[in-house]
Amino acid sequence: MLQSFLQDTWVTPTVTPASAVAVRDAVTGETVCHVSSEGLDVAGAFAHARRVGGPALRDLTFPQRADLLDAVAAAVRARREELYVLSARAGATLTDARYDVDGGIRVLRDYAARARAELPDAPYLLEGPAERLARGEDFLGLHLVTPSPGLMLQVNAFNFPVWAPLEKLAQAVLAGMPSVVKPATPTAYLTEHLVRIVTEAGVLPPGALQMVVGSVRTALDLLHEQDVLSFTGSAATAETLRTQPNLVARSVRFNAEADSVNAIVLAPDVEPGSPLFEAFVREVVTEMTVKAGQKCTAIRRVLVPQEHELAALDAISAGLAGVTIGNPGAEGVRMGAVVSLEQREDVRRAVRAIVESGRFVYGDPGKVRVVDADPERGAFLDTLLISADPDASAPHEVEPFGPAATVLAYRDTAHAMDLVARGRGSLAASVVGDDLAWTTAFVREAAPWHGRLHLLDSTNMAQTTGHGSPLPALRHGGPGRAGGGSEMGGTRGVVDLMQRTALQASPRLLDSLRNGHARPPADSA
Amino acid sequence: MLQSFLQDTWVTPTVTPASAVAVRDAVTGETVCHVSSEGLDVAGAFAHARRVGGPALRDLTFPQRADLLDAVAAAVRARREELYVLSARAGATLTDARYDVDGGIRVLRDYAARARAELPDAPYLLEGPAERLARGEDFLGLHLVTPSPGLMLQVNAFNFPVWAPLEKLAQAVLAGMPSVVKPATPTAYLTEHLVRIVTEAGVLPPGALQMVVGSVRTALDLLHEQDVLSFTGSAATAETLRTQPNLVARSVRFNAEADSVNAIVLAPDVEPGSPLFEAFVREVVTEMTVKAGQKCTAIRRVLVPQEHELAALDAISAGLAGVTIGNPGAEGVRMGAVVSLEQREDVRRAVRAIVESGRFVYGDPGKVRVVDADPERGAFLDTLLISADPDASAPHEVEPFGPAATVLAYRDTAHAMDLVARGRGSLAASVVGDDLAWTTAFVREAAPWHGRLHLLDSTNMAQTTGHGSPLPALRHGGPGRAGGGSEMGGTRGVVDLMQRTALQASPRLLDSLRNGHARPPADSA
Repeated sequence: MLQSFLQDTWVTPTVTPASAVAVRDAVTGETVCHVSSEGLDVAGAFAHARRVGGPALRDLTFPQRADLLDAVAAAVRARREELYVLSARAGATLTDARYDVDGGIRVLRDYAARARAELPDAPYLLEGPAERLARGEDFLGLHLVTPSPGLMLQVNAFNFPVWAPLEKLAQAVLAGMPSVVKPATPTAYLTEHLVRIVTEAGVLPPGALQMVVGSVRTALDLLHEQDVLSFTGSAATAETLRTQPNLVARSVRFNAEADSVNAIVLAPDVEPGSPLFEAFVREVVTEMTVKAGQKCTAIRRVLVPQEHELAALDAISAGLAGVTIGNPGAEGVRMGAVVSLEQREDVRRAVRAIVESGRFVYGDPGKVRVVDADPERGAFLDTLLISADPDASAPHEVEPFGPAATVLAYRDTAHAMDLVARGRGSLAASVVGDDLAWTTAFVREAAPWHGRLHLLDSTNMAQTTGHGSPLPALRHGGPGRAGGGSEMGGTRGVVDLMQRTALQASPRLLDSLRNGHARPPADSA
Repeated sequence: MLQSFLQDTWVTPTVTPASAVAVRDAVTGETVCHVSSEGLDVAGAFAHARRVGGPALRDLTFPQRADLLDAVAAAVRARREELYVLSARAGATLTDARYDVDGGIRVLRDYAARARAELPDAPYLLEGPAERLARGEDFLGLHLVTPSPGLMLQVNAFNFPVWAPLEKLAQAVLAGMPSVVKPATPTAYLTEHLVRIVTEAGVLPPGALQMVVGSVRTALDLLHEQDVLSFTGSAATAETLRTQPNLVARSVRFNAEADSVNAIVLAPDVEPGSPLFEAFVREVVTEMTVKAGQKCTAIRRVLVPQEHELAALDAISAGLAGVTIGNPGAEGVRMGAVVSLEQREDVRRAVRAIVESGRFVYGDPGKVRVVDADPERGAFLDTLLISADPDASAPHEVEPFGPAATVLAYRDTAHAMDLVARGRGSLAASVVGDDLAWTTAFVREAAPWHGRLHLLDSTNMAQTTGHGSPLPALRHGGPGRAGGGSEMGGTRGVVDLMQRTALQASPRLLDSLRNGHARPPADSA
């Protein structure tokens, strides 16, 4: 029975395993743990965050909060092997686990460095310069950014059980806000172990980090005006949360990262067989296979010029043929399982909807050859490349959240622009090409539909961090289908969690606020 | 029958006045016009905005869009007397009308100047500097801010029929977005006349500005991912709009400015009778009487130290006694009527709820002496000063949207901080005091609950633009009860309406995007 961490204590839910949810090993089908929030005092946890964690964090300056992030990063790094081992049970290869675990550590460190460089030695921020609002010189305007006296409730997806809580924690800690983490059930044991590592290191103030395993539906009624609900998951769940009456009545800030039907676009100028074409193929194969395609940013739609469709299908198929699937711990395996048998069924349903207007070019959703595992007890799936009618609906609307992508041939540039927008808002898209005029025009048209555009050409293809990787420097979140949210983007992601208040004040009062910044460290340790 | 302006044409709804809503003169009770959206082609208007207005605006550079704002400002200024005259029918004095009309002109001009100074000579914006994302020098990150290919639907409140549409138009035009304005029924004839003035001047591109008089409820189903719904009005209507299924399903951006229970706080150091105390009293009296208290930013709660409660009540009462109420056109009248008899009833209900824990110190909700008008046919109300139990609920929750305020005596600083937060989020609060340490501490505590803090002391009290005035330089919008929205705040208000997209790109592509900026004016005229 998985424990929760509430009010700085590990707590066991008051149910028998028989009436809790069983979480199974993605590779073997064995039971890993049971999950339930029965009997957990979530209200007490929220109160603890507000009374204990919040004041402690708000009292620190930005550099002091940055120190906390570095300490968390060091604690996780010291025990990251434990998380790698556990990740295999969720079907993740070592590469996948590093993406999740080391990725999370990197975000913490990156944010710590950014905070020191860009935020003041103070618990709050004055955004200047002050502007004269009247004829005299004593009535000035600027904005004050202060920590909200509330908490962040993280409702996370199953696919990044380590990166997601750390990425959100980094921004929340810097914003002076305590966190309550609710992990997704299929990988809750990984987040639980992460929280054990962090809390055993004793590096965060009491109440700064708590975790509720299981359902928090009723806890949504306990959120108030100063809280933030930070959600990552499906568009359907985002809708349910967004309309929760208490959240609406109190204008509780709600940030959603929903999965989206992300595209990669091969520009017309890229010749099959060229190094840039090969980079395009690598990008598609990587996105389909890293974490078995279970990334909200993964490429689902592959837009290619009609004349290069067959070449693209051939090259991607050849790339996929080199991907060994199986037990993530086994030698040579490049792709593990999806997270659960239920998830596998979801993917099968999704690809069947898409192939109604097309065909499988590579892979079979019904069978797969695996190394060192039972393909039926484990949630294994073959890589699935589909070719479909670009003007059909399903390829733009249905997201197979697994190792699947659909190639769609566009007739001309206008058609390509239209197709990319048919995703109705995506987290990320890639455009691959060397024709600057074409790419520039495409970017101008495609930008409003995307949170991030990853633009590869012959000069930078060797340096890319990859289509699927959200980076702390860059905004993560997209419009429409992608949820309309925003995370990271450097210190903007921190400021976005705080309250920006316009001030109209005399110079002497602004000076007093500025001097309030420079408080001795002893004051707030 | 009031016409709507759709697809660049004035259109009359297809109903008889008998089945439309009658709008009455606030002063005389005479019928001014009838309002209905029956038979109006709102879908056609939205399509026109997207196909005609949007592309035209997006093609312009920021300075060219700024020119449009100056042209609109000049057109309105040339005929502002017409709007003053019409405003009197809504109960507004000449001062009130200037607040609305000249205020709107000022926002247009201010935004035009800001756009020229702060935004590039381009249709979009690159937010730099570019950051290296990898070891090489060819994979850089920054953010591109582009116009959304959608429309802004303005749903406005009755109290600023000229300022509100112009303030939103200023930001929408600069963001490259066409506007569809839906005025509130009680003052729709004022917005209608404004739109006539603007369209007769012929200064905006076709499709850039349309207006639908009457209900737009069904039109909400027509909004999509690239649109913005910009709402000003009651918290209750904001809730209904926020949960509209189509808006939720498509993550349509929704910005709410809801009325809030704004406070002014007299600091303990201010002695009754001092010039700063008098400034405090003036601020309260002004906020209660300008536009007959019908401002979303108006002061509703007057927090004073217990020891100065009687002095404050006496001084504010004396100030109110000098306010002549009556026909806004009559000599010497300082306060006109509220907008309608229904509005008067709402105010009466609200003050009755508040006095349950207190008493009327000045004024009588049931009767009023007026100059040159019939106090019953016109929607006249006396100024109403209440003294109430600071720990009761109603004074912090119930907003009398009229010439009313409640004095609440606080025991100590902690009590004052607690009381101000009991508004659960406000657009604006004033703090009046000379004790820098006290005010600084108060600001730090109160800031997260407010969109704006107006801080008066002896050095700047003569220069203030007033508690109630939102300024283009400053964020307008507050957390929680105030709706959680944000407008203005300088060019940030423009960028907030656009899409910010992270770019990962080579230097040569970024250069190409930068050069795409410098297009000859002939290209986009």
